[in-house]
Amino acid sequence: MNRIITLTTDFGTRDGFVGAIKGVILSINPRALIVDITHDIEPQNIRHAAFVIAASAAYYPPKTIHVVVVDPGVGTTRQPIVANARGMFFVAPANGVLALVMPRDSNTQTFLLNESKYWLREISNTFHGRDIFAPVAAHISLGVPLTDLGELIDLKSEPDWFPKIGTHRNGEQVGQIIHVDRFGNLITNFSAETLDAAKSKPMIKIAGRQLRGLKQTYADGARGELIALINSFGLMEIAIRDGNAAQELQARVGTPVTIL
Amino acid sequence: MNRIITLTTDFGTRDGFVGAIKGVILSINPRALIVDITHDIEPQNIRHAAFVIAASAAYYPPKTIHVVVVDPGVGTTRQPIVANARGMFFVAPANGVLALVMPRDSNTQTFLLNESKYWLREISNTFHGRDIFAPVAAHISLGVPLTDLGELIDLKSEPDWFPKIGTHRNGEQVGQIIHVDRFGNLITNFSAETLDAAKSKPMIKIAGRQLRGLKQTYADGARGELIALINSFGLMEIAIRDGNAAQELQARVGTPVTIL
Amino acid sequence: MNRIITLTTDFGTRDGFVGAIKGVILSINPRALIVDITHDIEPQNIRHAAFVIAASAAYYPPKTIHVVVVDPGVGTTRQPIVANARGMFFVAPANGVLALVMPRDSNTQTFLLNESKYWLREISNTFHGRDIFAPVAAHISLGVPLTDLGELIDLKSEPDWFPKIGTHRNGEQVGQIIHVDRFGNLITNFSAETLDAAKSKPMIKIAGRQLRGLKQTYADGARGELIALINSFGLMEIAIRDGNAAQELQARVGTPVTIL
Repeated sequence: MNRIITLTTDFGTRDGFVGAIKGVILSINPRALIVDITHDIEPQNIRHAAFVIAASAAYYPPKTIHVVVVDPGVGTTRQPIVANARGMFFVAPANGVLALVMPRDSNTQTFLLNESKYWLREISNTFHGRDIFAPVAAHISLGVPLTDLGELIDLKSEPDWFPKIGTHRNGEQVGQIIHVDRFGNLITNFSAETLDAAKSKPMIKIAGRQLRGLKQTYADGARGELIALINSFGLMEIAIRDGNAAQELQARVGTPVTIL
Repeated sequence: MNRIITLTTDFGTRDGFVGAIKGVILSINPRALIVDITHDIEPQNIRHAAFVIAASAAYYPPKTIHVVVVDPGVGTTRQPIVANARGMFFVAPANGVLALVMPRDSNTQTFLLNESKYWLREISNTFHGRDIFAPVAAHISLGVPLTDLGELIDLKSEPDWFPKIGTHRNGEQVGQIIHVDRFGNLITNFSAETLDAAKSKPMIKIAGRQLRGLKQTYADGARGELIALINSFGLMEIAIRDGNAAQELQARVGTPVTIL
Repeated sequence: MNRIITLTTDFGTRDGFVGAIKGVILSINPRALIVDITHDIEPQNIRHAAFVIAASAAYYPPKTIHVVVVDPGVGTTRQPIVANARGMFFVAPANGVLALVMPRDSNTQTFLLNESKYWLREISNTFHGRDIFAPVAAHISLGVPLTDLGELIDLKSEPDWFPKIGTHRNGEQVGQIIHVDRFGNLITNFSAETLDAAKSKPMIKIAGRQLRGLKQTYADGARGELIALINSFGLMEIAIRDGNAAQELQARVGTPVTIL
């Protein structure tokens, strides 16, 4: 059984929330291997968490247990779930944080977490990360089958903001920025495959600016030049060599990007 | 023997202090399981550290070793100690960082760390986290009994700032803010038990504002409403739905709160 | 075989880069013990990384594998290397990040990483931390000898900025600030040994200010006093008691410091 449990949260580390979550996991399974992916998701930013877990999860071994807790609806009717997708387990609130790791047409199985015997004995209204998600992950790492944790449900995995690619009459494809990284680079939802199918030197438009073709690496741009490249996650990224594209273009998550 | 050693410090991670502490522990016990609780305690803020370790420690398995290093008096006469409390071990300077985890009337045993053979060979004047606390924790994880580490002492565990609850002539109980979390929520020293003993709908006053009764969850408040609830640590918390209570009320650690 | 792999990067944790790196390591060696030294190196600041790994590495057990990824030249001709120095392994780009851990006259062996079978199958142009450095470190932790990873090279380990100590005609020794810590303390390249060889009460000059002699500890200074002491890394440090020396002196990495 895989002992790896990753954590992706918006708790920061200055309040003791993460310390408590780790303690709960280790109290149930002292052999669990806890891996911090991040606790620096922007507070309550579901899209941010969705990107980070999608960028990370693919690299983990089979049966890794990923806990993703960005949970603005904690204590309300949003559902706590565990999903079996891509050979791994994802424990999270059903609020869209898993939208980018669970392909729509996949064999993903999703279970509603409603068996309270795998939770802490007392459940607060404000901290299900500690009280439900952490103990459930620890029990999975001990071999509890998902079918014991709750009932199979049919989950619409695609939230409103799910980044689709549309096509204009003139043939332009319309995507959007799905993440702004710490350097201000703008990551789009155009994949390398989409671009391969397009022209070899696409015309790219964003925020009133346009540029043609893709660079191989940041260093191929001139200092201060606006460039596009396929980034390490296989997605088209807009960057400024030695600069901050998000600031200069006043672009953010959701800003449209078109290619022709 | 429990191999779990948690770290709670104000070192940040940008200077190599934490990297050194982890290396010292692993050099003494390569099988130690190091758990980061936080390195983001506000520099030299003892009350902040006292809250975070209290909020986290309760969830760890018996015999966990908690290292807490916020140590403005390093190199002076403040005493390095290890305490056996709640079935766990706490390694720290005796400056109040353990005030909230060590109940006054408990069976806590405290030892002065004065056996230098369990320290690094060279002791700096400015970094006992690496030179004393880390190696002592590692030796405990290898099974060294506390009695070998130094002599039993009688430690007044309650610092000046220890948050007591007083009572006014009119029956009002007077507590205070003991922590401000990253969302600006104000955590008081009124426990759920204290409030149970009070009226069912207490009148709460803070910073010139008042409110009546407790909500179950943040979502029960209207947008922008000042609310009180029992938080996930079992303490009364003052919050603003979708807002920052600390900013709006100009409240901070130590700000008085009354209930009637 | 040592299973400890430390990580020192400038990736932060908000973008999923670190999550991916950890997954790659654990997919190759699920028994690896990953230790976060820091992900908060200032973006692309090679000197900052060089200081932090030098301050940390000495405390780790033999055969520890240190991965240091601050890599502004990723995708260009800068060489990926592994060095065997001080009985440990350092996996990094050859851009100076290892300058302070690899003594010039040592028995250090350096290998160019050019055996792609120990890398991920697909190599991006922008993220060799995940695609080359992480898998190489994981393979070393499984026992792959360095000679299998690439060819022995002769690496000039000393970058332009390497902090040397010069001597003026009047006998003054000229060093510099090599790191500013989170408290604003200024760490110089004068070691305790250099100072032992100097006068017992050296005259120290920095940024138009001067002071005489060394204190034992921060607490020996008066409030607001500019002091010098030997810090926990064995280097002379300039500090202001209860203040921020970097701000008050407008000093930074590279600022000259003289002693006489």
